[in-house]
Amino acid sequence: MFNTISIIGCGLIGSSILRAIKNNNLAKETKVFDHSKEVTAYLKKENICTNGSNDIRQCVANSDLIIIATPLSSYKEIILSIKDSLKKNAILTDTGSVKKEVMKIIHNINLTDVHWIPSHPIAGTEESGPRAGQAQMFKNRWCVISPPKDCANEPVKNLKAFWEAIGSKVQIMTPEEHDKILSLTSHLPHAIAYNIVRTVTGVEDKLKHEVVQYSAGGLRDFTRIAASNPLMWRDIFLDNNENISKGIESFIEKLNELKKAINDKNGDKLYQIFNSTKEVRKEIIKAGQDTNKPDFGRKKD
Amino acid sequence: MFNTISIIGCGLIGSSILRAIKNNNLAKETKVFDHSKEVTAYLKKENICTNGSNDIRQCVANSDLIIIATPLSSYKEIILSIKDSLKKNAILTDTGSVKKEVMKIIHNINLTDVHWIPSHPIAGTEESGPRAGQAQMFKNRWCVISPPKDCANEPVKNLKAFWEAIGSKVQIMTPEEHDKILSLTSHLPHAIAYNIVRTVTGVEDKLKHEVVQYSAGGLRDFTRIAASNPLMWRDIFLDNNENISKGIESFIEKLNELKKAINDKNGDKLYQIFNSTKEVRKEIIKAGQDTNKPDFGRKKD
Repeated sequence: MFNTISIIGCGLIGSSILRAIKNNNLAKETKVFDHSKEVTAYLKKENICTNGSNDIRQCVANSDLIIIATPLSSYKEIILSIKDSLKKNAILTDTGSVKKEVMKIIHNINLTDVHWIPSHPIAGTEESGPRAGQAQMFKNRWCVISPPKDCANEPVKNLKAFWEAIGSKVQIMTPEEHDKILSLTSHLPHAIAYNIVRTVTGVEDKLKHEVVQYSAGGLRDFTRIAASNPLMWRDIFLDNNENISKGIESFIEKLNELKKAINDKNGDKLYQIFNSTKEVRKEIIKAGQDTNKPDFGRKKD
Repeated sequence: MFNTISIIGCGLIGSSILRAIKNNNLAKETKVFDHSKEVTAYLKKENICTNGSNDIRQCVANSDLIIIATPLSSYKEIILSIKDSLKKNAILTDTGSVKKEVMKIIHNINLTDVHWIPSHPIAGTEESGPRAGQAQMFKNRWCVISPPKDCANEPVKNLKAFWEAIGSKVQIMTPEEHDKILSLTSHLPHAIAYNIVRTVTGVEDKLKHEVVQYSAGGLRDFTRIAASNPLMWRDIFLDNNENISKGIESFIEKLNELKKAINDKNGDKLYQIFNSTKEVRKEIIKAGQDTNKPDFGRKKD
């Protein structure tokens, strides 16, 4: 599909893309750059890429598709470093969870003869690093792409075909739509997961020990989410701060409503609250976003 | 182990206990009472119990162990109905998630010659009803029992052995300890899960459709929790209202701290927050309360 694909940053997502490219035979050559030499050495040793490079310019030269898979805060430096080494008509994309800041960076840099099309594969686990990568990571998962208005059709078609070839379902959105929707489906839930874990483990030591001991009653599911890469999440919260902050405000408003019902011992209101969320679960299963196996299939029949 | 065991209320938990009793051959006779005749008919048809009864008094007469597995709000009526029909030295227990209110009820009723020992098997899925029950439901899960101070040793030993025989690890706690710990490990996380689902789906219709569509990015894990039995949760929130309300207050305090860091674009503080929760996850896996398979084993290697 492409002669050469370069991946900048080979953690969980970058290394999963590499594995998927190899499994599906999507490039003659895969070149990687990572700020950690240990990561590059691992990928070469395991035959996950064809070329590792310690020079980011060399890594992207002659490449047809360049994918940035690093935390958002490193984008500016990376794009400034590579911009003069990019091949004419190459496609430049990323995997970041927020689009607002990167659009600004690209807007301020004069990228000529290169097709910049941001991507966001909505996939991942709570793990980090290249050893945690999986070729199947993107299978049946959404990938949002946000082509600029003046982008040619051909590169959009090619990038879409690439994500589909590694298993994704592709959806085109504006950066604004993307950041708004993801603030609700991903960023706010992560904020809340971190917050519940901090709240219930911020108690005295004896009680904390017991909280861990009996966490299977609900808490453990939040701790999985709250174990994700802290650097990545810091950057997401900095870049999508307005949407997330608004989400937190609505959340607190609803939580105060629940607290009032609890304090008033208002059984009818509590029932109404607890009953109103069942339908959403059904819609999510219908949309293919989760399985209806109880407790994620942890339980055996 | 027991000649006759009676189960009052045969939904997810009651029917799971019945299945486990049968699989492990723990009683000669199992008698059930459920306010739904359809449930009783189903359990008899499927041979999950030996006797179904439409009379709650008949159901408990001559029984050595009586287990109440109904929502907390029905306890008072049930205990008043059966109290004069209980066999001398029978063990009476329950499966409720809060202990405070039931201790009050028992305190106000003169139960003579019966061993009242509340239980809470910390197990379940988001499903409801007898068809969702599983014999393995309690395997390796905690069961908390709270024997009153004046309770004899023998019945405590027998009840403990019963829960262990169906796979549970038994822990003895006071009702106060139980309600405090569970408010943190289970009740508060449930409050938050309901609240996040209500917040992000309380948006206009077009956006709601998209929120469902892209829910795999984090939201879906909360919707599973928020799909649990609303009646059961209403009763838990009414009975454990003080502990839960306190928990919500601490939660809002921590959330305002996070919101401030977001609004201030304070990257160091955000990193510190997101990094502080990783250790807890490790402790939970070490305590055997979850597996370290990424994404609950949804992903394939």
